[in-house]
Amino acid sequence: MQRLNRPYVGIPTFLRAKAVDDIATLDASIAVLGVPFDEGSPFLPGSRMAPRALREQSLRFAAGNGIYNVEERKVYLKEEMERGLIADVGDVDIYPTNPEKSFAGVTDNVRTIIARGALPVILGGDHSITFAVVRAFNERIHVLQFDAHTDFAPVTPELRFTNGHAFRHIAAMPHVTGLTQIGIRSLRTSPEQIRDIVAAGHRIIPMDEFSAMRPQEVAATLPEGTRCYVSIDVDALDMPLVPGCVSAEPNGMSYAQLRDALRAIAERLEVVGFDFVEVNPTLDVGTGATSYLGAHTVIEFLGHICAQPRWSARRNASLR
Amino acid sequence: MQRLNRPYVGIPTFLRAKAVDDIATLDASIAVLGVPFDEGSPFLPGSRMAPRALREQSLRFAAGNGIYNVEERKVYLKEEMERGLIADVGDVDIYPTNPEKSFAGVTDNVRTIIARGALPVILGGDHSITFAVVRAFNERIHVLQFDAHTDFAPVTPELRFTNGHAFRHIAAMPHVTGLTQIGIRSLRTSPEQIRDIVAAGHRIIPMDEFSAMRPQEVAATLPEGTRCYVSIDVDALDMPLVPGCVSAEPNGMSYAQLRDALRAIAERLEVVGFDFVEVNPTLDVGTGATSYLGAHTVIEFLGHICAQPRWSARRNASLR
Amino acid sequence: MQRLNRPYVGIPTFLRAKAVDDIATLDASIAVLGVPFDEGSPFLPGSRMAPRALREQSLRFAAGNGIYNVEERKVYLKEEMERGLIADVGDVDIYPTNPEKSFAGVTDNVRTIIARGALPVILGGDHSITFAVVRAFNERIHVLQFDAHTDFAPVTPELRFTNGHAFRHIAAMPHVTGLTQIGIRSLRTSPEQIRDIVAAGHRIIPMDEFSAMRPQEVAATLPEGTRCYVSIDVDALDMPLVPGCVSAEPNGMSYAQLRDALRAIAERLEVVGFDFVEVNPTLDVGTGATSYLGAHTVIEFLGHICAQPRWSARRNASLR
Amino acid sequence: MQRLNRPYVGIPTFLRAKAVDDIATLDASIAVLGVPFDEGSPFLPGSRMAPRALREQSLRFAAGNGIYNVEERKVYLKEEMERGLIADVGDVDIYPTNPEKSFAGVTDNVRTIIARGALPVILGGDHSITFAVVRAFNERIHVLQFDAHTDFAPVTPELRFTNGHAFRHIAAMPHVTGLTQIGIRSLRTSPEQIRDIVAAGHRIIPMDEFSAMRPQEVAATLPEGTRCYVSIDVDALDMPLVPGCVSAEPNGMSYAQLRDALRAIAERLEVVGFDFVEVNPTLDVGTGATSYLGAHTVIEFLGHICAQPRWSARRNASLR
Amino acid sequence: MQRLNRPYVGIPTFLRAKAVDDIATLDASIAVLGVPFDEGSPFLPGSRMAPRALREQSLRFAAGNGIYNVEERKVYLKEEMERGLIADVGDVDIYPTNPEKSFAGVTDNVRTIIARGALPVILGGDHSITFAVVRAFNERIHVLQFDAHTDFAPVTPELRFTNGHAFRHIAAMPHVTGLTQIGIRSLRTSPEQIRDIVAAGHRIIPMDEFSAMRPQEVAATLPEGTRCYVSIDVDALDMPLVPGCVSAEPNGMSYAQLRDALRAIAERLEVVGFDFVEVNPTLDVGTGATSYLGAHTVIEFLGHICAQPRWSARRNASLR
Amino acid sequence: MQRLNRPYVGIPTFLRAKAVDDIATLDASIAVLGVPFDEGSPFLPGSRMAPRALREQSLRFAAGNGIYNVEERKVYLKEEMERGLIADVGDVDIYPTNPEKSFAGVTDNVRTIIARGALPVILGGDHSITFAVVRAFNERIHVLQFDAHTDFAPVTPELRFTNGHAFRHIAAMPHVTGLTQIGIRSLRTSPEQIRDIVAAGHRIIPMDEFSAMRPQEVAATLPEGTRCYVSIDVDALDMPLVPGCVSAEPNGMSYAQLRDALRAIAERLEVVGFDFVEVNPTLDVGTGATSYLGAHTVIEFLGHICAQPRWSARRNASLR
Repeated sequence: MQRLNRPYVGIPTFLRAKAVDDIATLDASIAVLGVPFDEGSPFLPGSRMAPRALREQSLRFAAGNGIYNVEERKVYLKEEMERGLIADVGDVDIYPTNPEKSFAGVTDNVRTIIARGALPVILGGDHSITFAVVRAFNERIHVLQFDAHTDFAPVTPELRFTNGHAFRHIAAMPHVTGLTQIGIRSLRTSPEQIRDIVAAGHRIIPMDEFSAMRPQEVAATLPEGTRCYVSIDVDALDMPLVPGCVSAEPNGMSYAQLRDALRAIAERLEVVGFDFVEVNPTLDVGTGATSYLGAHTVIEFLGHICAQPRWSARRNASLR
Repeated sequence: MQRLNRPYVGIPTFLRAKAVDDIATLDASIAVLGVPFDEGSPFLPGSRMAPRALREQSLRFAAGNGIYNVEERKVYLKEEMERGLIADVGDVDIYPTNPEKSFAGVTDNVRTIIARGALPVILGGDHSITFAVVRAFNERIHVLQFDAHTDFAPVTPELRFTNGHAFRHIAAMPHVTGLTQIGIRSLRTSPEQIRDIVAAGHRIIPMDEFSAMRPQEVAATLPEGTRCYVSIDVDALDMPLVPGCVSAEPNGMSYAQLRDALRAIAERLEVVGFDFVEVNPTLDVGTGATSYLGAHTVIEFLGHICAQPRWSARRNASLR
Repeated sequence: MQRLNRPYVGIPTFLRAKAVDDIATLDASIAVLGVPFDEGSPFLPGSRMAPRALREQSLRFAAGNGIYNVEERKVYLKEEMERGLIADVGDVDIYPTNPEKSFAGVTDNVRTIIARGALPVILGGDHSITFAVVRAFNERIHVLQFDAHTDFAPVTPELRFTNGHAFRHIAAMPHVTGLTQIGIRSLRTSPEQIRDIVAAGHRIIPMDEFSAMRPQEVAATLPEGTRCYVSIDVDALDMPLVPGCVSAEPNGMSYAQLRDALRAIAERLEVVGFDFVEVNPTLDVGTGATSYLGAHTVIEFLGHICAQPRWSARRNASLR
Repeated sequence: MQRLNRPYVGIPTFLRAKAVDDIATLDASIAVLGVPFDEGSPFLPGSRMAPRALREQSLRFAAGNGIYNVEERKVYLKEEMERGLIADVGDVDIYPTNPEKSFAGVTDNVRTIIARGALPVILGGDHSITFAVVRAFNERIHVLQFDAHTDFAPVTPELRFTNGHAFRHIAAMPHVTGLTQIGIRSLRTSPEQIRDIVAAGHRIIPMDEFSAMRPQEVAATLPEGTRCYVSIDVDALDMPLVPGCVSAEPNGMSYAQLRDALRAIAERLEVVGFDFVEVNPTLDVGTGATSYLGAHTVIEFLGHICAQPRWSARRNASLR
Repeated sequence: MQRLNRPYVGIPTFLRAKAVDDIATLDASIAVLGVPFDEGSPFLPGSRMAPRALREQSLRFAAGNGIYNVEERKVYLKEEMERGLIADVGDVDIYPTNPEKSFAGVTDNVRTIIARGALPVILGGDHSITFAVVRAFNERIHVLQFDAHTDFAPVTPELRFTNGHAFRHIAAMPHVTGLTQIGIRSLRTSPEQIRDIVAAGHRIIPMDEFSAMRPQEVAATLPEGTRCYVSIDVDALDMPLVPGCVSAEPNGMSYAQLRDALRAIAERLEVVGFDFVEVNPTLDVGTGATSYLGAHTVIEFLGHICAQPRWSARRNASLR
Repeated sequence: MQRLNRPYVGIPTFLRAKAVDDIATLDASIAVLGVPFDEGSPFLPGSRMAPRALREQSLRFAAGNGIYNVEERKVYLKEEMERGLIADVGDVDIYPTNPEKSFAGVTDNVRTIIARGALPVILGGDHSITFAVVRAFNERIHVLQFDAHTDFAPVTPELRFTNGHAFRHIAAMPHVTGLTQIGIRSLRTSPEQIRDIVAAGHRIIPMDEFSAMRPQEVAATLPEGTRCYVSIDVDALDMPLVPGCVSAEPNGMSYAQLRDALRAIAERLEVVGFDFVEVNPTLDVGTGATSYLGAHTVIEFLGHICAQPRWSARRNASLR
């Protein structure tokens, strides 16, 4: 008999996907990987609990086969959920006080996911993890970053791996063809970082500029079909939407703005993977609103990626 | 001597209305009834504490006689508060694990309120309670539902009384002439429910459609003077407004949108009763913001209902 | 390579035991089953989240093979953990507002566990679940209840399944040879229930009497080797130990008192299963202390059960 | 039909006693009065919410007629609850920033209670309120204070009404024949205050001395039948028992120690009134443990007072 | 060597400014003064903790010299931070239950700041403190109040100093040339207060009117260069932005609306001081979002004040 | 005029000691140093906020000159507080993700404190910091550790600096003459660590053994006058005392047990420094009880150290 599986029932995997204990045996179109790492956080820690919280909230979307948009009267992720094409590969192992070791694990896991033909969906952790994800790719990619902050701090012998450094590392990777930072607005931004980003030929779309663009224009800053990795810091969203994000800033994106930009990206570009970071469940409101919105964003973006013709081709190819 | 009665002082009844211990003796124009029931909640429970929290927050509006809208320079509920036309009839008795018994109590209480000539104002509780309220009416009514979710799950022998089932029951009641669902937008909506609602001739106004309408247009979907019952799920409001609502969803109504639609309904239609549900005080932020906004919504809507010419007639009639 | 598996890493099963999706295929000596049910709670709900929280806290004990008592210099559960003899069979499916259906699932699952030869370890949920567990046994057993409250409310047509009713049902079951209630002390106890319990020939050991007994004396109230089921309400413990238990009462057991009584029971009697109920993680302190202590109690009691000669025999027999 | 009245149901009065809106009409043996005042708190405020929280928690004891001690097999407060001899007279009106006005209200209310022949049971609020209660008595009384702190700060023109000053005022009242401070232990005690208390002929029983005494010895420091007022600061209890008390201190009383001392006082002395102060519900744990223990203490002490022969006489006299 | 000084490191002064223990020796262009007073709060207290929380959050802006607006590519407060022109003079001493004494301290401190030539930046506390700040000025000033509430309660012998009275006092001060109240919208507004404000010739700009104005129009209601004091109640902002404000109201200002109005005021008028009040850190969300937004507002407004030509002149003059 | 300085007023330094910005100029008998480091925590982070929270709670003891024990009628720390012999040197600078750099700072700071002749009092942070403190000493010392856990994990290339490793490093330091671990009891203890500790000639006093000893016997395990460093993990205390400690364990020390052992150590041995670690203020109860008890422990132990004849000599010598 079919189970009801209310969201408070059962051991939580993302969207109740099958748990894959040995990532080397992964056989799925989409692989969800948690990175419960927050040692790079500059103020209050706790985002290490986000993969677990995002999984729990994702169960609320797992009642049926697919996700339904009532405004469009359209179902998403139907085939992926019905046929079990999503796998939850668990979390990267973390070595406290040894971030290099932890990040090596991130890179290894993502490489395996890519090698097994699955789309990596990464759940942070703080934003320091993204460089370890991006370096796992072995093809030329553009990186799109939704964020209130540039995270482009200079790397020194003494400070290299905080969540403020990730995109300095990423921008320097040979296979990264460019970086686009969208939604930048924090008053705590460093002018030197802005100067370096621009000098290196990368693109910053500050929040006011983003608000003036249509979603398609954001995507159109890159050629059709560009292979890209998308990194979503939850603080791209406006402050009241994310009470459980330590780095939240005012004047951010509405949910619709973020969703529509992601959708336009999914439609025009080839998304080869994405991450979602900086939810802090231990400091969130009691209802877990920020984790819920996080799971919502991940699932809706994934839905748009999987609604593209190029995905159908890939999905079918990945099924062995 | 007049008491100051700061909101933290005294035993809380709604708007410091007189408490009526024996509902059979009710003599008022408006009766506030709590239904502290949350056994129908599909995820985190706690809305059973909402009637108590809404009463407490309502005390903040009870300092004077009437509620003043400074933008309009207009007073509402003056006569109702000054003359003591509002009664607080307390809470329905709840039988844990026996929802049918609890719901029978709801229906009995509402029937008594109607029989005594008062307008029922119901404080949930989760949304499962609304069917027990609506079935108490003995006249033909249209039901207007403000909600992010359809709550139209199929009734099976095994699952009948959750907060996802209420409107399936309501739509089937002979005296309910129709159902209008406003603000529907959850990604967790079931396409089968949408199909059934539409097939039964009911009206869904999804959030995008609602946003494109003027408030008067929402009311104008029904003939002038239609007798209607209004059920307000706090999750109709946008997520950041309701941190203490477990089912909150992004892209919802602003407070002004909800208020203006309710006002237009009060102006055009004959509101025979209403409920306000799904606040969860145990998970709310420390300031009780969601309960405050709940009390605010109930009081402002009540103010608009009582500002209508048709209400004056009724009010005067109800005074014995 | 061996993983570190810090407690915040990975998908939580109890003690990182293997997850068994299909209980019909269970092959283990010990089966942990969650019952996330709290519809029987008389005041604040939330214990439905306990199985998940207990699993999460149990991960803190999963770093090695076995649990070490430094005062005794003795290892427990070594073989069970090393050889993977513990299985996590997940949660019983819950049907909100239909407790009879939910309880039927409890009974079915426990029957299967018993039929498969494993020791059932049940994680509530509120205390209403225990009757559904106990009725699954098909042999004569004595029931030992650690509790501040009698939970022996009279069963009426209107109220039958709250956490105050469980032991009235249990005491009436033909295969239950007797009931011993240990730690009873609540000022909210009903004298009528006490009268009924005593009249039926059951034994109440109120808290003051319990405190005056040595642990062995508690066990010695039953003949050596008596087959018994043990139900542990976390409110048996003293109030400051259980900030996340709604029904906590002053003057309760110290942890050592509870542990020693459970140990003496494990040593003298044949424990055929046990449950641990009434932790409420949503209301607990931020460190999750009550859930941690819950996992601690379950694991330590299990350790003592498995340290008995009679267990070795059974364990070996169960390994196919 | 009898209502179940689960504790989360209904408008909370203390023990579901009848609410008396006009104190001048009071007709009861016992009158419960709230004083939601915390302007005298030296650190974190919030105890103004205690009367409301204590009333809510008291509902958990209101299911039957009387309170049952299972260890003694004895019922308390049976007649008082059954015959409705307890009245809840609501809260004193508070004038923020004008403590003298607020305290005048306290004194007026208590005077009325006394004049109407009822026993005043006062729910604070912080400890600054007690002097305003004590000055309402018009007979010679001894004051017994259970507290971790002396609250005997010198009164200056600039600082007179904090919770550290109350007992300096009380000790100076002509009708107060003496003061006994029990449980004093805070490291934040001022030696000057100790000197003044002793110099004035009052008695301090520090915590270590109290622990060495039998409960009867505490009561025996006063002659049999002495009329006394008892003021109970919740911080007399040990720190882990009172997570929601800002002034909690280690090495305090167990619940049994406090209960037994109160009982011995009730048995030997004539208690003419008592208060219970310094619970801070806004900072308490989610289960409201401190408020629950507060209600528990008040009800159990009241039970012991009403179990005395001298009370039966008085109770019967008070019934008009 | 330069310290990193992550925000969780070190003893917090505002923006890591030098702490001035003896205000009589103040030598700075800007002086930040805390007023941890909340005895005037009409509902839940706790804003006394705001100065400490605002200082802690301000550390997040203290990493560099100056604050950078990435949308404008412009640095603010560079000279002030680089040259150490900001001083933190600590908190006014508070006398609980003696508000007049506490307010005398506020006035004394602000007078000293003014006399020492520094711009006073005041961190409340609740809004009752503003009158004590404003009366310290010895020149003719206009007072601009951003607030959801009028705070213009009639002063009676019994009630004079709550946060609802401040602007009644201020409006009556001879050196206050006028009062402009911006953002008024609360349904709990008293029509009598509105009448009095208007009758006294003051200006109310309710929220709807404010929303219809450009920022420059708000400033243009006063002549260019008018010396003015600005009082910012955090509840001017919309409810979801301020979960840690007890008096939050729906339909308030977006952050951009408030910021732009403050900026226009800084550009057109001569701001002689300002305060920021009514953040309640003890009831805020775990991330401290409301305190962060408070520090953000104060710093950005200060940045705009210091970016004016008139400030450069003043700043240079103040440097001895 | 003397300030009242209620604990919520003013910028918090420990016991309102003078803040020393440049540690190289330190001139005091006692130096309090914060180490806000929690990257070594194995489960929930947050103890980085402890130095700030302990300072805030310490203000509650700063009202007078000295700390008064009412049971002994004795003043402690009188001279130290009156003459300003305590200095707060702020926090060590932390480099997230670079623990070696952070620990180097710890060692440098402690070396400077020692070189300046002051007694180092260290406020963690998690327990990983202690090795960096101990290695700063340049004399032979014994290390006494109060703890529920051994923190003696094997050092591997991959994992070296967590809070489980500190005492493995310490035990191996040439100037550390021995290690005594007191209160060990966690069920999560590793038998291998126990074996290694014992094999290396160190002493473990498990909790049951400790409970059976008089305080003087604990101290008497070392020769009179032995120079020793004391490291106090707050989890040595029993679980209910420390709701804000993630690693709390049942069956721990009462406050009196810990206090008396520390006192006996202060009396018999020469304490050359001590630390207090593992309070997690972000997860503590709302009253901050764990931080309060932490400040209480530090201050009382410091009081006992400074009450010794050997301290008077040293104190006088340190005053230049």
